[in-house]
Amino acid sequence: MDQFATKPHDALAGALHSELDAVNALIREKMVSQHAPRIPEVTAHLIEAGGKRLRPMLTLAAARLCGYEGGFHIHLAATVEFIHTATLLHDDVVDESEQRRGRPTANLLWDNQSSVLVGDYLFARAFQLMVEPGNLRVLKILAGASATIAEGEVLQLTVAQDVSTSEDTYLQVIRGKTAALFSAATESGAVLAGAPEDHVRALTEYGDALGIAFQMADDLLDYLGDSGQTGKNIGDDFRERKLTLPVIRAIAKADEAERSFWERTIGRGRQQDGDLDTALSILARHKALESTRDSAYAWSDKARAALEILPESELRDILSDLASYVVSRLK
Amino acid sequence: MDQFATKPHDALAGALHSELDAVNALIREKMVSQHAPRIPEVTAHLIEAGGKRLRPMLTLAAARLCGYEGGFHIHLAATVEFIHTATLLHDDVVDESEQRRGRPTANLLWDNQSSVLVGDYLFARAFQLMVEPGNLRVLKILAGASATIAEGEVLQLTVAQDVSTSEDTYLQVIRGKTAALFSAATESGAVLAGAPEDHVRALTEYGDALGIAFQMADDLLDYLGDSGQTGKNIGDDFRERKLTLPVIRAIAKADEAERSFWERTIGRGRQQDGDLDTALSILARHKALESTRDSAYAWSDKARAALEILPESELRDILSDLASYVVSRLK
Repeated sequence: MDQFATKPHDALAGALHSELDAVNALIREKMVSQHAPRIPEVTAHLIEAGGKRLRPMLTLAAARLCGYEGGFHIHLAATVEFIHTATLLHDDVVDESEQRRGRPTANLLWDNQSSVLVGDYLFARAFQLMVEPGNLRVLKILAGASATIAEGEVLQLTVAQDVSTSEDTYLQVIRGKTAALFSAATESGAVLAGAPEDHVRALTEYGDALGIAFQMADDLLDYLGDSGQTGKNIGDDFRERKLTLPVIRAIAKADEAERSFWERTIGRGRQQDGDLDTALSILARHKALESTRDSAYAWSDKARAALEILPESELRDILSDLASYVVSRLK
Repeated sequence: MDQFATKPHDALAGALHSELDAVNALIREKMVSQHAPRIPEVTAHLIEAGGKRLRPMLTLAAARLCGYEGGFHIHLAATVEFIHTATLLHDDVVDESEQRRGRPTANLLWDNQSSVLVGDYLFARAFQLMVEPGNLRVLKILAGASATIAEGEVLQLTVAQDVSTSEDTYLQVIRGKTAALFSAATESGAVLAGAPEDHVRALTEYGDALGIAFQMADDLLDYLGDSGQTGKNIGDDFRERKLTLPVIRAIAKADEAERSFWERTIGRGRQQDGDLDTALSILARHKALESTRDSAYAWSDKARAALEILPESELRDILSDLASYVVSRLK
């Protein structure tokens, strides 16, 4: 990480700090509920837990890069953060998670019911916020992204533990669970700014490729380890029987014995001591981790390349650095 | 029910049948998912289980009553049904229900995860559909209703089993869980049609009052019994420790012994054989059932009265009959 004097998301937060303050103020204003105090309690637990506000910053940056001078990018940025928070609440119920950002999850502190219903409230608030700018194309983008996110999550659920999962399916899942909101964040900022179509397209592609690189890196770090940065343990995905790219690639090259191993450990969930070590050595034998890293790098390159048609600016450089940064942990 | 030669919702379905066919076709088209076949499976289970399509018919009727001649009321009606279906999926998870409309619930047939995520997908689809007519005021109405629904559900969760629940809180809960979508259904139809403000207001009030009458009747039938019409058993709400209007009114008049009874059975959930009979006799002593029925009648009257400023028509008469019908089961 030495190549970054300042981490790109800190640089973004610095460049956008007054707008980010406005986003945070709007989030606090809109998470209030006149009648149900449980709503702001649960929301604050998650939204003030030190998330980096990466997604809303993408919206702000895209709008600014495209010369937007109005104030409605604040609403869209808050929308994006609300959609993200709602999906986190629901994901933690679906995954029965107990920790998020180093703290107990809302479903653990309160209950699943509160997480489901407060998530619904935040979705609805997100839709109320996105209507404010009065831009129908932006509404279509963000409503479409919400559908894609849910579709990706359902797909992930139905292919979980299925050792025949293809790379295409994996890509569809991570586009849904991660990249759809990244690309909707950048695209909606550009559209709000009235940017020319090729700039809108460039920023949409940037968000999509950034999200894919980000998620591939995350899935890879689950096997590489992360020097305690994410608080995740090596092999969580393996123990939870998730089909991520390293395993999908190793299964594609598996001999008969290896195939039985994956079927037993991931397909049927009959795991025993030493299985994670075996998994890591199979992944190494087929260079599945290197090849996943190469793919993450390629998506990161694609994200940077997409930005090239935009006029040079400090913000453009930071976004480009961000695309390098999300895969820099893989070195 | 003898006063109704044809049940008002059947009369509505007859008067609107070609539009209702179009709504059903649009629902089937939009519940498809290219990537996740689990989505249409779960959705179809609920949406084709013989629901009466009451809420979408309210949207169609309101638009038609206000002279709408376009085609976008179909989209709004499908939106309203999708929002309704999404809330049913999430409610059944929250309530851990096992039966809905006489069939096993989706959370039982599949799992809670599918119900949460497919519900999210349907919310997102609802927002995509409501954007189609390009009417910002309609978007604000429907997004606002979605927030009110979730807020009402969270409120219901946090006051459950709280014997100090007031009538005001009860009204807020049922406005959220039931009346908000009824009134958004009628209001959005009227707004789409470009109706004069007093007609919009009349149809909004009609929807609100109809929803409240409907829910009060439902809560009362839980103690009165329903000759097998709903498949509910007498006392379900009592056993689930729900604070509905009959009990709230009985608690308001309780002497010391009765107060301990409600605190034990509803507040602490220590129920034993014979408690339901005791509850029924306390409700009878304070005429809590009669007084709840009077309130339901009053809301039904209010719904009918709201319609009076609209021009006379067959549809207006059917809507008026519908307001009578929802409380006719209380005779």
